[in-house]
Amino acid sequence: MLTKTWQLAERTTHIKPSVIREILKLTQRPNIISFAGGLPSPDAFPLEHIQAASQRVLEKYGTSALQYSTTEGFPQLREWVANTVSSRGRATVTPDQVLITSGSQQALDLIGKVFLDPGSLVAVESPTYMGALQAWNAYQAQYTTMDMDEEGVMLASLEAALRRSPRFAYLLPNYQNPSGLMLSAECRQEVAKLAQRYGVPLLEDDAYAGLTFDGNIPPTLHGYAPDNTIYVGTFSKTLAPGLRLAWIVADKSLMGKLVETKQGTDLHTSSYGQLLAYECIEGGFLAEHSRTISSLYGERCARMLAGMEQHFPAEVTWTRPTGGMFIWVTLPQHMSAQKLFEVALEQEVAFVPGTPFYANGGGENTLRLNFSSSSLEKIDVGIERLGKAIRAAM
Amino acid sequence: MLTKTWQLAERTTHIKPSVIREILKLTQRPNIISFAGGLPSPDAFPLEHIQAASQRVLEKYGTSALQYSTTEGFPQLREWVANTVSSRGRATVTPDQVLITSGSQQALDLIGKVFLDPGSLVAVESPTYMGALQAWNAYQAQYTTMDMDEEGVMLASLEAALRRSPRFAYLLPNYQNPSGLMLSAECRQEVAKLAQRYGVPLLEDDAYAGLTFDGNIPPTLHGYAPDNTIYVGTFSKTLAPGLRLAWIVADKSLMGKLVETKQGTDLHTSSYGQLLAYECIEGGFLAEHSRTISSLYGERCARMLAGMEQHFPAEVTWTRPTGGMFIWVTLPQHMSAQKLFEVALEQEVAFVPGTPFYANGGGENTLRLNFSSSSLEKIDVGIERLGKAIRAAM
Repeated sequence: MLTKTWQLAERTTHIKPSVIREILKLTQRPNIISFAGGLPSPDAFPLEHIQAASQRVLEKYGTSALQYSTTEGFPQLREWVANTVSSRGRATVTPDQVLITSGSQQALDLIGKVFLDPGSLVAVESPTYMGALQAWNAYQAQYTTMDMDEEGVMLASLEAALRRSPRFAYLLPNYQNPSGLMLSAECRQEVAKLAQRYGVPLLEDDAYAGLTFDGNIPPTLHGYAPDNTIYVGTFSKTLAPGLRLAWIVADKSLMGKLVETKQGTDLHTSSYGQLLAYECIEGGFLAEHSRTISSLYGERCARMLAGMEQHFPAEVTWTRPTGGMFIWVTLPQHMSAQKLFEVALEQEVAFVPGTPFYANGGGENTLRLNFSSSSLEKIDVGIERLGKAIRAAM
Repeated sequence: MLTKTWQLAERTTHIKPSVIREILKLTQRPNIISFAGGLPSPDAFPLEHIQAASQRVLEKYGTSALQYSTTEGFPQLREWVANTVSSRGRATVTPDQVLITSGSQQALDLIGKVFLDPGSLVAVESPTYMGALQAWNAYQAQYTTMDMDEEGVMLASLEAALRRSPRFAYLLPNYQNPSGLMLSAECRQEVAKLAQRYGVPLLEDDAYAGLTFDGNIPPTLHGYAPDNTIYVGTFSKTLAPGLRLAWIVADKSLMGKLVETKQGTDLHTSSYGQLLAYECIEGGFLAEHSRTISSLYGERCARMLAGMEQHFPAEVTWTRPTGGMFIWVTLPQHMSAQKLFEVALEQEVAFVPGTPFYANGGGENTLRLNFSSSSLEKIDVGIERLGKAIRAAM
């Protein structure tokens, strides 16, 4: 049908519907308790605060909130980002190193567009964030994977990947999606040094930094090698994902190309949306609100971990995140998470099987659980059901 | 500098800063009257109406205005678009043929991403919209151009371009940017038929349909060949550009690929922005407001045309638009609009020289004047200055 009418670009053969979105369709039956999604909890959205801010936007900024604006983003928002990222790492970020993007998915897309030719190699953690693979598949990227352990990416595996001269190495050092793992403080400087030594840019995706349960986050990779690191952050997890607002911090030598590329891609990010976000965050609201969300998620995570301890067989292992939104489960070697998924659906509980998070295949015995978007009661019931399903499938 | 640190994609050598943005920098000196920009008039933004709508968004839609949403867009907004586009052409558009995009620049980018391999041919009018060239240059497109006369694209020139089997043919049938020209009612059906005969998709960019001075707009190309036409419309000219909201209407056989591609590009367009726009337009506000804007722009256009009649030498010719935002000026063959630009700056008046609107070069003696964003007084003074500059340069 498609081929008959439309002669499409070669790249479209690499663009597939998100596996997760397909899975989510299966999990929307009314009685199913789903740990499959990746949504922030709407309980955590600061509705009244945003409502109040929305009433100030047009009063304060008038028609400039409705007019075309610069591709780089509003100066006050770029300054806020520069200060925030500076405070998270050991380097000073200036506003002219900040590009406001339409969500971090666009940040990943723009970076792919600027760096990737068909066949270009990207180093990714194994497992890694599926949305990044989706963005870069459209540019016909190939992947070299880096193994992880409890301390995040393994240095030997990173170095082996860097030797292959990828266009960049993509890491999520804090509460990684999907694994919940954290790159240890000790390893960070070493990661930055290795990337510099091999001349490979680091792409640091820091989507979950605002969701820390214990306040214990090591400095950014960016701070150790600001010339060689592209840093991506977002308002989606701490303010609201529906605003589609995120940012790239990069060295000035790269900023020009990123800005020109964004100009041809969508001119600029919503003027109104940027000013609405700024009205919400100026005065320090986000730091305070992050603590509220983190406390909510921390409680849900602890409850899920406790349930797993109680209901999961001893042969199953999992990560114990100190932030973020996800727990990563490893089943016994021989078990298929895909087959478990079918058994679990019968028990009216759902998760995401792990394979789509592996760029080059593997992970058949892994799965991801989301704890941010379910109530404590649902977590209790859902984890008990999942425990039964695992025993039934074993 | 760039090449030393970053190994970038081949496509980045085709991505250049917008020539217009460079020109705009030169025209921002305080006393300059600039007809160079392409901004809608902020006088025409319905500030109070949007303010009132913004207060309803969170009240009515609650957290769904802040949460992730579907890539396709909000159902109620897609339905509004389907009805609106149906009313403009001879085919019925259904909501599942509508994709909400982050401005029409993103619509053009996504279409490029789906259709264009490096070296792919695109048929464009000569002159054409510069933003489209910027979007498709990033996919390393090549261009075949179609000449225009007072009735819009010339059929013989269209057919010659179609014979070369471009991936699609891009037309702006209503009040084209930059020329202000209109594709005649008589030619539209013929254009649609020719494209079907040669099996080349049409891309119809209808950004200016809402800005009609006489209400006289022929039916859409889409209505004559809905299976073979991709239609792009926008809220930027009638509601507010800063919201970055537009849409693609396409046959269902293409919609899946467009949606998957947008998913990897930015997940979805701002939930809040979509609902804010919907709250503004439901109940028919936009039709009424379009008449207000069109009346304002019509008056400005008439004033500019009258001034040109009075002050421009007889050797200069120009279009007489019945809508949109631009007048296109042709200087005598031997004259350079670029050189005139420098003389004009001395006279403290500015415009955009025409060459960047030509995909394959040419148009050295042409220029674009914007009438939407200047007051009548500025139009009077600016056109008198420009008349002097032309005489001085001749």
